Amino acid sequence: MENNNNNNSHDQYGRKVMKDVSLQELRERLVEFSRVRGWDQYHSPRNLLLALVGEVGELSEIFQWKGEVARGLPNWTSDDKEHLEEELSDVLLYLVQLADVCGLDLGQAALTKIVKNAQKYPVTKPT
Amino acid sequence: MENNNNNNSHDQYGRKVMKDVSLQELRERLVEFSRVRGWDQYHSPRNLLLALVGEVGELSEIFQWKGEVARGLPNWTSDDKEHLEEELSDVLLYLVQLADVCGLDLGQAALTKIVKNAQKYPVTKPT
Amino acid sequence: MENNNNNNSHDQYGRKVMKDVSLQELRERLVEFSRVRGWDQYHSPRNLLLALVGEVGELSEIFQWKGEVARGLPNWTSDDKEHLEEELSDVLLYLVQLADVCGLDLGQAALTKIVKNAQKYPVTKPT
Amino acid sequence: MENNNNNNSHDQYGRKVMKDVSLQELRERLVEFSRVRGWDQYHSPRNLLLALVGEVGELSEIFQWKGEVARGLPNWTSDDKEHLEEELSDVLLYLVQLADVCGLDLGQAALTKIVKNAQKYPVTKPT
Repeated sequence: MENNNNNNSHDQYGRKVMKDVSLQELRERLVEFSRVRGWDQYHSPRNLLLALVGEVGELSEIFQWKGEVARGLPNWTSDDKEHLEEELSDVLLYLVQLADVCGLDLGQAALTKIVKNAQKYPVTKPT
Repeated sequence: MENNNNNNSHDQYGRKVMKDVSLQELRERLVEFSRVRGWDQYHSPRNLLLALVGEVGELSEIFQWKGEVARGLPNWTSDDKEHLEEELSDVLLYLVQLADVCGLDLGQAALTKIVKNAQKYPVTKPT
Repeated sequence: MENNNNNNSHDQYGRKVMKDVSLQELRERLVEFSRVRGWDQYHSPRNLLLALVGEVGELSEIFQWKGEVARGLPNWTSDDKEHLEEELSDVLLYLVQLADVCGLDLGQAALTKIVKNAQKYPVTKPT
Repeated sequence: MENNNNNNSHDQYGRKVMKDVSLQELRERLVEFSRVRGWDQYHSPRNLLLALVGEVGELSEIFQWKGEVARGLPNWTSDDKEHLEEELSDVLLYLVQLADVCGLDLGQAALTKIVKNAQKYPVTKPT
């Protein structure tokens, strides 16, 4: 039986399985979020772009006085990591909305770009 | 029969169905992309963050001399739209990689942030 | 007699004359500001760059939900204008410090860039 | 005798003295630059802000794959330094123009902000 209050489920061995969140799902949730609050009127492309830049600024502030940071963020507190998750999310959520008001499919575009990058940067050495 | 060269499929009526791209899928593709090219060594959190800022700059350049832009981008050429799709994608791809090297689950974080935003901004009017 | 508590002076007709602030003066003040607070240790180029990006984010937040804004900011309150002055200043102050720790002369560089731009974009019409 | 073709002069000992470039001088040059090219029409506050963000992106790209960078940029080529000077300048030039079209005095605002910061962060240790 599905647990609608939870993003996760469990596999046949009882292990927690994180839900595989799609860009389409985020888009739909954000469309509804704005609709019920009457915020669509503010969501012009350039307004959303500037909001995105604002969030990139907040993301940068997290890293600004730290010098080089190691992968996996050793020594970061869980509060710091949660703060980082929030700012990463804010950037993503505005990016999804910006693509949406531009009428573009961000997920498809991203897959296409990966293919294009693979052609631009061919693998030259045996792996 | 599945067409592996194509991100899309068709439903029972022959309509094209866009694939619902997940953040986990993008992450996996990007991890593989970097691994086979030996690029992991460059993917520290702050390197990826600055690369993200670089792409946000390129995204902004698309909009910089246009004055206000209407939703849906009327009057934009398909070339301009494709260019925009690429820059939106570049931002997304670095964001996914930044979250990944930080050991964070971007999709879960984004869902959690939407819930948090919903609590912060309750719907006050009947919809 | 000079009034050292004031950035301005008055001309022979008693009109207020705004001081012509130089990049060198800002640089010197900021060097001293950091020195007496022991902040030099944090002022690596990439730390200052990320701090700059953070301030550009705050600057963008001021403009994010406004739609197009007219020159001269009609209808902005003096508080809003003061807030904007602060964010513009924060960007400038980090830019001056970034150039300084890189050992570059920002003022000279800017003049040189204007000359280069003039060559790149020649005036084609009679003025 | 003044050399008008050169931004610098020499002191009584023949040493080169770099001109102390002021924000007002940059502003005036940029106003004239735009005027003779008929570019004023494009210089709305948000257009200039997005152009600024674009240049901050280019500035970030210079630093993106370098890991931590030491003060003074040891090991950078003169070409790399010149490129950096150009991108720092581009950010400054758009910042000056943004302040100008907003009707704000960037130099005065910056001095005021330094004073405000000094009050916010008092010097607590003997220097």
